Amino acid sequence: MTTDLACTPLPAITVDLLLGIVTTRAIRRYKDEDIPEEDLRAMLFAASRGSSGSNRQPTRFLVLRRTEAAGEARRLLGLAARTVWERKSVNEGYGTGSGAVPSSRKWRMAQTMQMFAENIDRSPVIVFACLAGVQAPDLHHGASVYPAVQNLLLAARSLGYGGVLTTFHREVQDDLVRALNLPQDVTICATVPIGRPMGNHGPVRRMPLSATVHENVWGAHPSWAVEPPPVRAAGARSAEFTGE
Amino acid sequence: MTTDLACTPLPAITVDLLLGIVTTRAIRRYKDEDIPEEDLRAMLFAASRGSSGSNRQPTRFLVLRRTEAAGEARRLLGLAARTVWERKSVNEGYGTGSGAVPSSRKWRMAQTMQMFAENIDRSPVIVFACLAGVQAPDLHHGASVYPAVQNLLLAARSLGYGGVLTTFHREVQDDLVRALNLPQDVTICATVPIGRPMGNHGPVRRMPLSATVHENVWGAHPSWAVEPPPVRAAGARSAEFTGE
Repeated sequence: MTTDLACTPLPAITVDLLLGIVTTRAIRRYKDEDIPEEDLRAMLFAASRGSSGSNRQPTRFLVLRRTEAAGEARRLLGLAARTVWERKSVNEGYGTGSGAVPSSRKWRMAQTMQMFAENIDRSPVIVFACLAGVQAPDLHHGASVYPAVQNLLLAARSLGYGGVLTTFHREVQDDLVRALNLPQDVTICATVPIGRPMGNHGPVRRMPLSATVHENVWGAHPSWAVEPPPVRAAGARSAEFTGE
Repeated sequence: MTTDLACTPLPAITVDLLLGIVTTRAIRRYKDEDIPEEDLRAMLFAASRGSSGSNRQPTRFLVLRRTEAAGEARRLLGLAARTVWERKSVNEGYGTGSGAVPSSRKWRMAQTMQMFAENIDRSPVIVFACLAGVQAPDLHHGASVYPAVQNLLLAARSLGYGGVLTTFHREVQDDLVRALNLPQDVTICATVPIGRPMGNHGPVRRMPLSATVHENVWGAHPSWAVEPPPVRAAGARSAEFTGE
């Protein structure tokens, strides 16, 4: 297998870069399919191309497969996800108001989050993005690891997968350190489940650019910061690209 | 212009997503060309598609154009870049050892950094990626802003531009706050100059996957974590895609 992959080029045609970026959604529901190692390699290779301060490359990836050796870490994440979601559900009133109205946006989000929390431990793959060799990393250390996480998510999308950046590890930090045998100077920064999506990628909901883009000084919103016409939702892999 | 862009779709064909990710370099030298507003809009739109914790969307972008109103902020960044580079140059011996050998890797890096520091204030565009409404952001807040920065850099590359994630703002923080009129709860997280590259995008130098990817437990390196054959360097915009 090692020799094979060393001679196997990355997939050559996937999805258009700009359209891929603007149609990459957080994917929280996965088909029950393992991810071939060739695709895993491509995703981790893409992730590792992220930049870092002075190119020090402090980012490490720990990939949980669906195997006995990953059992305890997966169990801990499942526990963490359910704890986080239950707390959030109560604090943000997901069971009341519009959250109690079937098929409202809030209700649908609650269904997705509930299902996500119940099934995260069975995700085809879960990637921990970590910083190594940094004591007590601060905000700016994030600049050396989260770009890699975004590469990971975009590369997943390019190959017909999807994932989501979570921080569930924070809920079970000490137990995870033991289960994963993490050295003292390694910090988990992101927990990223990945799999073949149930549902589709497509345009995402965000505030208008006129509210988030300033020009030259704070508070001056430029006339060019306007939304483009809706982007056509694009499926996975090559079809929609060659079909443009 | 506003009306025009609201009806103008994003560029439809740029670069392949996966190949774009793995060939996006830090670009520090720019041609003396302004960036059309249509392209700026596409980049900022792509950046704003990044995900954030609970989709709270705390990220804001402040875009410095080449105009009088941006003069003081640009001057401060130039000062910061030169200060940071001079310190680094001394601390890391860029003028000694292999750094003193013309055309060595270290010497070439020093030339690039020197030129970057001298010219950063004239970059066609400089984007500050900020967090708003977060008091004293920590590592994990970075998960809501640095993925957007990576989107910005990849979108730039998709349109034939290039940029680099820097943290020069840290050197002149208080003066920048005044020059930009930043509210008290806004934190600059990244300073990203962008322009038409002198030089090319292409494969980047990173540690081997066998050193950075672990499987199931820390220290176990999977057999599939091997480099692919070299990726062909790709130029900008559509040509290299349709030419594949």
